Amino acid sequence: MKTFKTLFVTTAIYVLFGTQIVLAVGNGIVVFQSDFGLRDQAVSAMHGVALGVDKNLKVEDLTHDIPAYNIWEGAYRLDAVADFWPEHTVFVSVVDPGVGSDRKSVVLKTKTNHYFVTPDNGTLTLVAKRLGIAEVREIDEKVNRLKDSEASHTFHGRDVYAYTGARLAANKILFEKVGPKLPDQVLNIQHETARIEGKTLIGGIPILDPAYGNVWTNVPMALLLKLSKVKSYSELYTKPFSVTVTQAGKTVLLKAITFERSFAGVNEGEPLLYVNSLENLALALNQDNFADKFKISAGGDWRIEIRAK
Amino acid sequence: MKTFKTLFVTTAIYVLFGTQIVLAVGNGIVVFQSDFGLRDQAVSAMHGVALGVDKNLKVEDLTHDIPAYNIWEGAYRLDAVADFWPEHTVFVSVVDPGVGSDRKSVVLKTKTNHYFVTPDNGTLTLVAKRLGIAEVREIDEKVNRLKDSEASHTFHGRDVYAYTGARLAANKILFEKVGPKLPDQVLNIQHETARIEGKTLIGGIPILDPAYGNVWTNVPMALLLKLSKVKSYSELYTKPFSVTVTQAGKTVLLKAITFERSFAGVNEGEPLLYVNSLENLALALNQDNFADKFKISAGGDWRIEIRAK
Amino acid sequence: MKTFKTLFVTTAIYVLFGTQIVLAVGNGIVVFQSDFGLRDQAVSAMHGVALGVDKNLKVEDLTHDIPAYNIWEGAYRLDAVADFWPEHTVFVSVVDPGVGSDRKSVVLKTKTNHYFVTPDNGTLTLVAKRLGIAEVREIDEKVNRLKDSEASHTFHGRDVYAYTGARLAANKILFEKVGPKLPDQVLNIQHETARIEGKTLIGGIPILDPAYGNVWTNVPMALLLKLSKVKSYSELYTKPFSVTVTQAGKTVLLKAITFERSFAGVNEGEPLLYVNSLENLALALNQDNFADKFKISAGGDWRIEIRAK
Repeated sequence: MKTFKTLFVTTAIYVLFGTQIVLAVGNGIVVFQSDFGLRDQAVSAMHGVALGVDKNLKVEDLTHDIPAYNIWEGAYRLDAVADFWPEHTVFVSVVDPGVGSDRKSVVLKTKTNHYFVTPDNGTLTLVAKRLGIAEVREIDEKVNRLKDSEASHTFHGRDVYAYTGARLAANKILFEKVGPKLPDQVLNIQHETARIEGKTLIGGIPILDPAYGNVWTNVPMALLLKLSKVKSYSELYTKPFSVTVTQAGKTVLLKAITFERSFAGVNEGEPLLYVNSLENLALALNQDNFADKFKISAGGDWRIEIRAK
Repeated sequence: MKTFKTLFVTTAIYVLFGTQIVLAVGNGIVVFQSDFGLRDQAVSAMHGVALGVDKNLKVEDLTHDIPAYNIWEGAYRLDAVADFWPEHTVFVSVVDPGVGSDRKSVVLKTKTNHYFVTPDNGTLTLVAKRLGIAEVREIDEKVNRLKDSEASHTFHGRDVYAYTGARLAANKILFEKVGPKLPDQVLNIQHETARIEGKTLIGGIPILDPAYGNVWTNVPMALLLKLSKVKSYSELYTKPFSVTVTQAGKTVLLKAITFERSFAGVNEGEPLLYVNSLENLALALNQDNFADKFKISAGGDWRIEIRAK
Repeated sequence: MKTFKTLFVTTAIYVLFGTQIVLAVGNGIVVFQSDFGLRDQAVSAMHGVALGVDKNLKVEDLTHDIPAYNIWEGAYRLDAVADFWPEHTVFVSVVDPGVGSDRKSVVLKTKTNHYFVTPDNGTLTLVAKRLGIAEVREIDEKVNRLKDSEASHTFHGRDVYAYTGARLAANKILFEKVGPKLPDQVLNIQHETARIEGKTLIGGIPILDPAYGNVWTNVPMALLLKLSKVKSYSELYTKPFSVTVTQAGKTVLLKAITFERSFAGVNEGEPLLYVNSLENLALALNQDNFADKFKISAGGDWRIEIRAK
């Protein structure tokens, strides 16, 4: 019987310990984002380091096609996807033009129990605001660094961020061991917020949907309901709105566009306003490219105005 | 002893139940295809939803670089890869220009025990024909939909297809619970079939091999054996054929090309006919791009004719 | 009690046998590289075959964007990433312009206990030299080939390499069963090596960092320390060097460039010499593209010379 008892006790300890630690940090999933692209070995090196920490990890990706050094787009992608991943998922985001400068390396824990390992350079702007900051810790790079990697100062993504993210996800360290607690704030990038002014709905264009050329605004559908004084989306289907898009104050588009339940609501090549998968307003052409046709891009100086017609 | 007995019984039930369910549907693998590209967060959102259903799933990809709205190419890729994946694999394919229209969302079970979760818009044309239809069910989107996703009508890929595919793969639902059984048929896209007419072998050009510019036909090697009245491939090695390629009836290429065992059978830059990995005839230049050089593309109006020389 | 005894004995045998086999070959991870791109189904077919061998494998990727037929770059990427993956990882690399010719299919075991399944066409040049050859075996394709795949001669990546790599990683075969032992050597591609001649440090440009346009040399940082007669990197920070880059003997760049701890050491748009993540010297512009600006590429006929200024 001794062997069975040992087996059982070991199992019991494992289960209890495993459970306790899982509650503390990781669920075994680590999700990588970067501006490295997939053409070279950089992403694979990060995956390899993570599986070297624990080969039972689920090593996944957000995207590695963030335009080089585009911190804003990195922030946007994180925010757009984070809570479609399970609680306790660890994200590692490396868009880091300031590598080697004095920007801090941090781990953000949000109130939704998602973890974000990244340079604190604005990447956390949107996710911190929307999901809420539970705690921020600075990564102590003396402790949290791949063995024998001290000599190289240029690949923190692999040697510090991937390594630390994997150790959190695999519960090889507690969150508290990452490094000292920081104030509950992250570096913020300035951007236009959505609001109603009089009879006009105003917002920004944070991103394009690159595969289709749809234009995504930061205007929550709830604001259009409020502007229109209706309760449900269906009351607005097929209703026309006057849409103005400006860049740095110059009008790029002024057009009447109907709000539709789906792309099939208008003919091929015709424009529509719709609710995207983030519950925000977006602009599209049915089976064509809105951004290309009307020469619209995304960024801080783009602005959209919507009025009832 | 009570604890051991409980442990054992639990294990036994798990093993038996697990086995029974696995036979019913999934093997724990879900394979995604789409026209989303990898530059934004859409694919990662689908992966996240799948691992949220069960974090032990194997979440894999076919390709996400299907040209936007190109249902035919989606159908082709599914057919080309499906049976290289193990029995009971669940495929989720989202090439969906008709999102929001009245196309049905379905799950096809083939006679090979592969599952395909997709809009029924032609995507299943080739795989249903070649692997055989065991059963088709319509997805009841009221039941099979990610929690709290009802408001958005534009990302079925994530909220319905990824979620349903993951639940099938993880055996969280039985195939029967997907929704009502449909007749044993899927929506078909018209395309030219391979055949012998007199002394001419005729077929279509369903696809290009994009990395190398090889031209893939839908003509099975068996038909070339029949046309040539031989039993084995080796009897045809180095034999020349007259190859005509037309688009919408207009001749694009007319050339004598030899059938070769492999690319190394001809000099660099020279053309060859060969058997591709699908056991179909294909055209290539050794270490160069056939499609570019001879301006050949793929699609329903492309036709190839092969005659003995 | 009989059932418990059986359970325990089975477990014990499994654990012992598992451990023994793991020491022999695989750790359950197989990493794929190719020049196939991700637009078609080829990579997914290899993944499917691997998970068909054992659905518990971790199927990972290095890159599939090796330029078509560029064996040198394949060799470079393997070497750059191999030892960031755990010991006993199996790599499958398929850059194979000579498919169907008489190049051998081999498995290299390095002294670091990494395994490389590939055509022996130069792909192993760098990894064999740096990690050391423990043993080379030729793949016996009669035994190590996906069932029913004999008819096709053009997709060894899927039918032979993926299948064999997966079986090694999953410990379904021992290394000795791959095929006959070969001499301890691999096919080598000629390339310039790094060295000091008099007061000049000379080396090659094996690769560009494609995402950023940084120019990576094959000159180990240790040689710059030796040339400069200093012990630590920090003694060289901000020190200027005279850098000459030539292609086929013709000078492309002649410029004074400072050695910096990190990109932030110089102003935006300014050049720097730095240590890349492989501990080699590299050239960059802070937040700009060095290779584009100075029209520098990579390959055997590129040469760099560095002198103290």
